[in-house]
Amino acid sequence: MLRYLTAGESHGKSLIAILEGMVSGLKIDPDAINKELKRRMQGYGRGDRMRIEKDAVEILSGLKNDATLGSPITLLIENADFSIDKLPSLSCPRPGHADLAGGLKYDHKDLRNVLERASARETAARVGIGAICKILLAELGIDMLSHVTMIGGVEAHTKDISFDEIRTLAEKSPVRCADEAAAKLMCEEIDNAKDAGDTLGGCFEVVITGVPAGLGSYVQYDRKLDANLANAIMSIQGLKGVCIGLGHEVAHKSGSQFHDAIFYKKDQGFSRKTNNAGGIEGGVSNGEDIIIKGFMKPIATLKDPLPSVDIKTKKQKKADVERSDVCAVSSAGVIGEAAAAFVIANALCEKFGGDSLGEIKRNFEGYLEQVKKF
Amino acid sequence: MLRYLTAGESHGKSLIAILEGMVSGLKIDPDAINKELKRRMQGYGRGDRMRIEKDAVEILSGLKNDATLGSPITLLIENADFSIDKLPSLSCPRPGHADLAGGLKYDHKDLRNVLERASARETAARVGIGAICKILLAELGIDMLSHVTMIGGVEAHTKDISFDEIRTLAEKSPVRCADEAAAKLMCEEIDNAKDAGDTLGGCFEVVITGVPAGLGSYVQYDRKLDANLANAIMSIQGLKGVCIGLGHEVAHKSGSQFHDAIFYKKDQGFSRKTNNAGGIEGGVSNGEDIIIKGFMKPIATLKDPLPSVDIKTKKQKKADVERSDVCAVSSAGVIGEAAAAFVIANALCEKFGGDSLGEIKRNFEGYLEQVKKF
Amino acid sequence: MLRYLTAGESHGKSLIAILEGMVSGLKIDPDAINKELKRRMQGYGRGDRMRIEKDAVEILSGLKNDATLGSPITLLIENADFSIDKLPSLSCPRPGHADLAGGLKYDHKDLRNVLERASARETAARVGIGAICKILLAELGIDMLSHVTMIGGVEAHTKDISFDEIRTLAEKSPVRCADEAAAKLMCEEIDNAKDAGDTLGGCFEVVITGVPAGLGSYVQYDRKLDANLANAIMSIQGLKGVCIGLGHEVAHKSGSQFHDAIFYKKDQGFSRKTNNAGGIEGGVSNGEDIIIKGFMKPIATLKDPLPSVDIKTKKQKKADVERSDVCAVSSAGVIGEAAAAFVIANALCEKFGGDSLGEIKRNFEGYLEQVKKF
Amino acid sequence: MLRYLTAGESHGKSLIAILEGMVSGLKIDPDAINKELKRRMQGYGRGDRMRIEKDAVEILSGLKNDATLGSPITLLIENADFSIDKLPSLSCPRPGHADLAGGLKYDHKDLRNVLERASARETAARVGIGAICKILLAELGIDMLSHVTMIGGVEAHTKDISFDEIRTLAEKSPVRCADEAAAKLMCEEIDNAKDAGDTLGGCFEVVITGVPAGLGSYVQYDRKLDANLANAIMSIQGLKGVCIGLGHEVAHKSGSQFHDAIFYKKDQGFSRKTNNAGGIEGGVSNGEDIIIKGFMKPIATLKDPLPSVDIKTKKQKKADVERSDVCAVSSAGVIGEAAAAFVIANALCEKFGGDSLGEIKRNFEGYLEQVKKF
Repeated sequence: MLRYLTAGESHGKSLIAILEGMVSGLKIDPDAINKELKRRMQGYGRGDRMRIEKDAVEILSGLKNDATLGSPITLLIENADFSIDKLPSLSCPRPGHADLAGGLKYDHKDLRNVLERASARETAARVGIGAICKILLAELGIDMLSHVTMIGGVEAHTKDISFDEIRTLAEKSPVRCADEAAAKLMCEEIDNAKDAGDTLGGCFEVVITGVPAGLGSYVQYDRKLDANLANAIMSIQGLKGVCIGLGHEVAHKSGSQFHDAIFYKKDQGFSRKTNNAGGIEGGVSNGEDIIIKGFMKPIATLKDPLPSVDIKTKKQKKADVERSDVCAVSSAGVIGEAAAAFVIANALCEKFGGDSLGEIKRNFEGYLEQVKKF
Repeated sequence: MLRYLTAGESHGKSLIAILEGMVSGLKIDPDAINKELKRRMQGYGRGDRMRIEKDAVEILSGLKNDATLGSPITLLIENADFSIDKLPSLSCPRPGHADLAGGLKYDHKDLRNVLERASARETAARVGIGAICKILLAELGIDMLSHVTMIGGVEAHTKDISFDEIRTLAEKSPVRCADEAAAKLMCEEIDNAKDAGDTLGGCFEVVITGVPAGLGSYVQYDRKLDANLANAIMSIQGLKGVCIGLGHEVAHKSGSQFHDAIFYKKDQGFSRKTNNAGGIEGGVSNGEDIIIKGFMKPIATLKDPLPSVDIKTKKQKKADVERSDVCAVSSAGVIGEAAAAFVIANALCEKFGGDSLGEIKRNFEGYLEQVKKF
Repeated sequence: MLRYLTAGESHGKSLIAILEGMVSGLKIDPDAINKELKRRMQGYGRGDRMRIEKDAVEILSGLKNDATLGSPITLLIENADFSIDKLPSLSCPRPGHADLAGGLKYDHKDLRNVLERASARETAARVGIGAICKILLAELGIDMLSHVTMIGGVEAHTKDISFDEIRTLAEKSPVRCADEAAAKLMCEEIDNAKDAGDTLGGCFEVVITGVPAGLGSYVQYDRKLDANLANAIMSIQGLKGVCIGLGHEVAHKSGSQFHDAIFYKKDQGFSRKTNNAGGIEGGVSNGEDIIIKGFMKPIATLKDPLPSVDIKTKKQKKADVERSDVCAVSSAGVIGEAAAAFVIANALCEKFGGDSLGEIKRNFEGYLEQVKKF
Repeated sequence: MLRYLTAGESHGKSLIAILEGMVSGLKIDPDAINKELKRRMQGYGRGDRMRIEKDAVEILSGLKNDATLGSPITLLIENADFSIDKLPSLSCPRPGHADLAGGLKYDHKDLRNVLERASARETAARVGIGAICKILLAELGIDMLSHVTMIGGVEAHTKDISFDEIRTLAEKSPVRCADEAAAKLMCEEIDNAKDAGDTLGGCFEVVITGVPAGLGSYVQYDRKLDANLANAIMSIQGLKGVCIGLGHEVAHKSGSQFHDAIFYKKDQGFSRKTNNAGGIEGGVSNGEDIIIKGFMKPIATLKDPLPSVDIKTKKQKKADVERSDVCAVSSAGVIGEAAAAFVIANALCEKFGGDSLGEIKRNFEGYLEQVKKF
């Protein structure tokens, strides 16, 4: 079992994460983590904070000479803007944020006490966790990418290009979108929204390749791989929807159009020509690419704020304004990769056990052999 | 903490569920459970099995004189069609089912060993669990409904009618759809699909009213109410997508159009005029109705089956055919209610603690008083 | 991950247990479970109930043709004495039982509502769970036994005989004690206690052989094998103490006397000549026999009852009397085996993963090979 | 639900702990944590490391202006001796430590990779967690103490003095023993052991006062308060036994001698004149003081080391020697308090829920009122 906890406030000293249950003997290059942190910070439409913070990870535990020990791994990311005790208090909750609901729940009269932890800055810690999980996945031949498929109503068209091309194009794009023409329109929409003091949401896709059939299970509701991926993706700040494969378009196809017929070739084993299921059937990975879509609402902090209420005076006022982004869908895709990487890594640890990299690899390969002979 | 496990195969002796952590002193009318089981079994497009089974619950533990003791509650639903040891083995996996992935995972050469547990018959046990959770919710003033919003591409229009009307109309509708005209078209689509040996999917909505602000939390990824609802809904057999509030339509609105402005009235406290967020902001319930959408793929067993492979001979063959439904979206909505009822009940137990009905009520009311004075 | 829940009241319809996470392909002979249930029921000093109940298990789910499917396994044990709704209410709590604390907690004015679930009858379900775990353990070469080492102050002497002999002798003994002379005295003590309307406690030992080095872990407090065994043993009704190896006698030996020096032989690998640690060092199994001691208090229901208070009138009265045993240490040892069997089986599943018997065996053997070459 | 993870190696940068689920609004004085860290470091028989380290906590998250936010609390304790990457490798496992079993498990050929995390230095992080839990407990009127009752065969006699006196005396004693004469003999035993290059173990007692009846539960094996305390105590490095109340002495008393008769006084409610049960009956706190005993083995690092084997050459050699203590029972008692404080705090959070200090207090007091009227 892998597990993790994150901690840290947006303007606290630092973000912290502990990852527990990782095998020993895995080489961790801090730059691989920093690269992911950097990917998270970029994107057309991100705000000033991203110019202030130079996220870099410090690994406080779990390694000796850059290799995992099997003991818990602690990541620390310092906040350049450490000011929590001095920042002004807030009393006009921002619609769309946890401000009001969190204030009521924890009985916080200063809503800063809520937003400091509810802030999406927390996702930097999760991206760090995901980066380590990706190193394990890579050892087992599992790879992943993400790209933005929609921002502010502009849709990307990527059906005709391969995942490798999508990755290359998305990594170069200012909005992490593989359709250059759409990307240009998305940037324009972001500019327009910015000028209007408004914000935008959108959709991203995460693709995971190389996952063997047999992760997750149908035997109990809480062992289903798709359910656990849905949980991980929906837990990302600002997400309002999650789909596997064709997802919300399922209603538009009949069974004979939707389901992925099964074929067999001697050297490749079982395979499909379509992947509408997105790589998961009955809660179990089926050996095809896993495809996840996440739907993100527009950023909830508006420069031209919505009507709100001062919780102290109960008078109608405009919502408070904090430094924020115009659009963060490009980052959300990177965070989605991290969230999914953890779920897949955990499912691998559950199925293959193992305390050292050598052991999990041996068990993994034994299973691939079994599947080949099935 | 509430928790549950279900057990039982589709053609085994019975389905069983244990619900653990329920308060003492709750009156349980078995008919309230049976009513929910019956709602699950109905719906235009359901198959023969539903004519064979007369699901009725037997409560094996946890009650004395019809009141909960605080000890685990066991539900048992007998299978009229108990034949697991005699049924023919299967070797041609059905695309869309767990058959192939499950066979590889558990090394089952007889795919019946997979489908017996992967079958959606398991959801009867979950509906039983949900029925008990609903009894607790009702004691705290929380109510829920579900209705079908799409089948086979036919969309229902219900924006102009109240949730009470939706419930009344949906409960009378053969497909649990509150838009009578759409319902008629849906039934026609189901007839057409049936004639073609094909199947249909669709979309349902679950609405939960009376939930106080403050359930769930933003402090850790796995405490978010929306993430836990997404998990529960996606764990339902056949589901491929889940949304909260506007969900996958988020990309089509800017922040100023999407977020729900905050108002205050002396007697009612904080409120909203819109509910695009679907009652959850930052992973926390905000006091508005919770609105969840589930997207279900077409049933994976086709009378006119898709290409598949015999796992023994590795020869291309048509997939096996099992007795099945043409469309089960109407049932999925009922199961969605049950899955959501458990998540909400668990969130209530976590926030309000309490071992007896009196204690959880006292704590609940104390909090409502606190919120009123906030 | 293996997990289980039990349910059922002492005079309810039945006891139920669901075991979840067991590998597929394990042959389950119901008689192997019934044999363990019978071992639990016997022992000099057990009461009338044990003459009424003929515990036999019915397996409601998880098997096809006697082999596990990988899906949850449900055990049901019917209560011959099903009378819960008709039994008289109780208002004078028995010191030593959960009666009073449970009544306060769950707000039960009829203390029968407490004792029906708090009763040690629940352990029949756990013995059933343990019996299945033992079948898995046997497949991996792990075996276990238990014997009574003390009753009512009479101590058994077994240091000079092998575990095999201890098992043989204990299984024949009326009190499951391997020292025949001591057993005779124990029976006399039980007779004396019975005559006096009194009860007795004592101590048992569980020995587990064949456990490889490397189960459990030191990396986090809740992964320690000894801590999890302590949890399982202390959760048995009536237990007040638990030790690993020399346990509570540790204070009487210095480090040089206590710790088990390490040796190596080419064919056997690392070994010890002593086993004061009881097979666990630093929370990890070390390859030696695991030795656990459990300390059980005297049965809390006395024929000649202790002073108590009527919870309705608040008047001083004698405690209520229920049908009960004089001494149940012999049964507690059998339950201790079951509790330990689950913990060991779970630790194996965590370390070796695997969804089928073949897979867990392959992973297990791969690790044994790795250890041999270490 | 409260939960925590610790991280950090003995000679790594720092120890880290994240505590998650704590209510908002709790004032945290870092000196209260530092005081507990200091108590852990002291005691006659502790080694050189304790002279090097000046443990002081840095709180990285979870607070604003010294009050909890409801968000995760991160504690960091720097290691003055941060040298993990430079320390010599070890190949002769020390009997009694995790060295060998951990090396086999994680496939570590350098046993330093094991001992760095298996080291009892980790307990500093747990004492920090416990210190915060104690602040919550104090708000609800719950207090605790610990004292050493045996070292190296010397037993303390404290039956005739009150818990308050025991605390005062223990806090002043060099070995945290409340019996001055015994303490003197214990120090002599420690001196003798030190001279002989040997080590000592012993026994401590933790007493918790002010716990209301009703924490924990009998309804499921893993909800029992005594079982969870046993888990927490046994998870402390070096512990081999744990008892509640009379514990391992249970066999020497009959039921009529053992069980604590129940009395009632109008102003005080139910009470007992004896407390052999140690405050827990049937897995539930009964309102009396909770009494826990922990049995610690002698320190496993001997200056005059035991026979071992070089894992590289497989040649018989003396075990490696690390800087260590002669006796650490005095510290173990302090760690035992911390471990128990977490379990009690968690049980309180489970029963009383609550997200803010005000809410948990209100729910707690509502229950005390209910109990009073029972």
